[in-house]
Amino acid sequence: MAPDPLTCPELRGASCLVTGGLGFIGSNLALALAAGGARVAVVDALVPHHGGDRRNLDGAAAPIAVTIADIGDRGAMTPLLGEADVVFNVAGQVSHLESMTDPLRDLDLNVRSHLALLELVRELRPGAVVVHTSTRQVYGRPRYLPVDEDHPTAPVDVNGVDKLAAEQLHLLYAAVHDMAISALRLTNVYGPRQSLMRDGLGFLPVFVRRALRGEPIDVYGDGRQLRDCLYVDDVVRALVLAAVTPDSVGQVFNLGHDDALELAEIARIVAAGAGGASEVSLVPWPDDLVRIDIGSFWGDFSKAKRVLGWAPEIGFGAGIAATIAFYREHPWYLSSI
Amino acid sequence: MAPDPLTCPELRGASCLVTGGLGFIGSNLALALAAGGARVAVVDALVPHHGGDRRNLDGAAAPIAVTIADIGDRGAMTPLLGEADVVFNVAGQVSHLESMTDPLRDLDLNVRSHLALLELVRELRPGAVVVHTSTRQVYGRPRYLPVDEDHPTAPVDVNGVDKLAAEQLHLLYAAVHDMAISALRLTNVYGPRQSLMRDGLGFLPVFVRRALRGEPIDVYGDGRQLRDCLYVDDVVRALVLAAVTPDSVGQVFNLGHDDALELAEIARIVAAGAGGASEVSLVPWPDDLVRIDIGSFWGDFSKAKRVLGWAPEIGFGAGIAATIAFYREHPWYLSSI
Repeated sequence: MAPDPLTCPELRGASCLVTGGLGFIGSNLALALAAGGARVAVVDALVPHHGGDRRNLDGAAAPIAVTIADIGDRGAMTPLLGEADVVFNVAGQVSHLESMTDPLRDLDLNVRSHLALLELVRELRPGAVVVHTSTRQVYGRPRYLPVDEDHPTAPVDVNGVDKLAAEQLHLLYAAVHDMAISALRLTNVYGPRQSLMRDGLGFLPVFVRRALRGEPIDVYGDGRQLRDCLYVDDVVRALVLAAVTPDSVGQVFNLGHDDALELAEIARIVAAGAGGASEVSLVPWPDDLVRIDIGSFWGDFSKAKRVLGWAPEIGFGAGIAATIAFYREHPWYLSSI
Repeated sequence: MAPDPLTCPELRGASCLVTGGLGFIGSNLALALAAGGARVAVVDALVPHHGGDRRNLDGAAAPIAVTIADIGDRGAMTPLLGEADVVFNVAGQVSHLESMTDPLRDLDLNVRSHLALLELVRELRPGAVVVHTSTRQVYGRPRYLPVDEDHPTAPVDVNGVDKLAAEQLHLLYAAVHDMAISALRLTNVYGPRQSLMRDGLGFLPVFVRRALRGEPIDVYGDGRQLRDCLYVDDVVRALVLAAVTPDSVGQVFNLGHDDALELAEIARIVAAGAGGASEVSLVPWPDDLVRIDIGSFWGDFSKAKRVLGWAPEIGFGAGIAATIAFYREHPWYLSSI
């Protein structure tokens, strides 16, 4: 039995546009906003293999308007932006590996389209609140733990470079053009509505898929790398808090979790949550991945706590239990992309 | 009487490709390499108003092959890269102000084309040495002086965001693809062959133009902002040293000057160097510029000194004297572009 869907009433009556709204985080956000009484529209390019799917919005508490378009497309975005009070800019290419095999595409999707969107917002709806989702990947290999927002940025893959550029452009538009823009740096996120069938989107959906199927789970290296995983509902709450907190403007915030776990432990918890049929093994690093691995990561989110009043509420065991329950109730996630 | 042109013999016999080779720094580099016995080809898109001009290569000591193309153009670049031992990647859009009025164009010229070039080098000539010219603008407003390479990066304009992304991509290709790539962060550069007739390319060419014409020179604000200006020959020597120093691979180096001068003093030296007819005045900041101003800047170049054996050799007074003499001998710089 899956838990109740999240409801975010903070933006009741507001017009909210969610980019990437058919994807993992975007769809969970759109559903929570609609359940809370916001007027919600989503735009999604439905880029093949990026995890976007119209079915992610099934069961919405209120109608959600869906536009299939690139976020930098003037024609498609003009009517959407004309009404938006808040733009949650969640769209993006998230595969680190794909960013290395097709870097120009990653640049176009993660920087160029976002810059075009910023220009459109500046022109058409400069008073809109904008919240951008960035990533801990901008830091590269941590020099110290936990990593705070002042940690040097040194991305180790093209995706990290591009996400950092997009984040900096968002904050720049806040500073230079007096726009109400903030950014959140996410860590590894898991939960319902994540694409499970593709590798290259991070280890969590792979672990969950293999656990659900009772297949063995491979962990690279010694399995001691720390990660502070976030349940998607905690991310959704942070996005909404960033939108409704005036002091967030022009700021970037780490999201993170007090419980930094070792990868091998994460794999064991996922396997156990699905019934324990999966065997967890340590295997050597594949060459193409070890070069863009960052070692241990653990984010300091005290700034988000102080300014946004945000802290994660869901521990890894409980989050995984809810995740497993969701996919058991929605088996199509295991049979398509 | 202009000083002797610089000669760089370190790459004698080597095949050198200079991108942006019809522009300010690129043309000075190409001439110095040709005088030193390298086989030199340049590629330049001759983007209008960017300062590129075929006449910048007048008087070359040996023939320099010129290709007019974007650096990401596969067809044009394939024959050039097939022969290159060293690629000096100097091309770029350098106007901070223009990057704010046409940000997508800045992204295309300063990031997308460079990423396409990196992909072409990786495919066609992965063993070539590549030196990229980055900028102190990646740091934004300094938190401390002098600014070393570990100073946080927080660009204050789109140009800074884009230049940082391009630099990070270059260093990433060194780390991930084992390529011999390094990057230099330049400060304000002046000297022969700089476009004088356009504003928005930094204060130095404006000061020089107005001094040559005996026109008044305006300095924004209180004129106390520090800048460590570099004569172009010192930059050319640094580029060549980066190319021939194996320990530079994967590294970024500040260039800078021990003599950090206040802007008002810089203006007075330029005016005096041209005969003293120009009056120097302090005027209030224009609104569009104050928002992207960074205050004082002074770079710590001890890493370049240690690893490359580089230090600037030309003081500001001597450099300005050589600069003024050059433009007096080449008056077309004051009547075109």
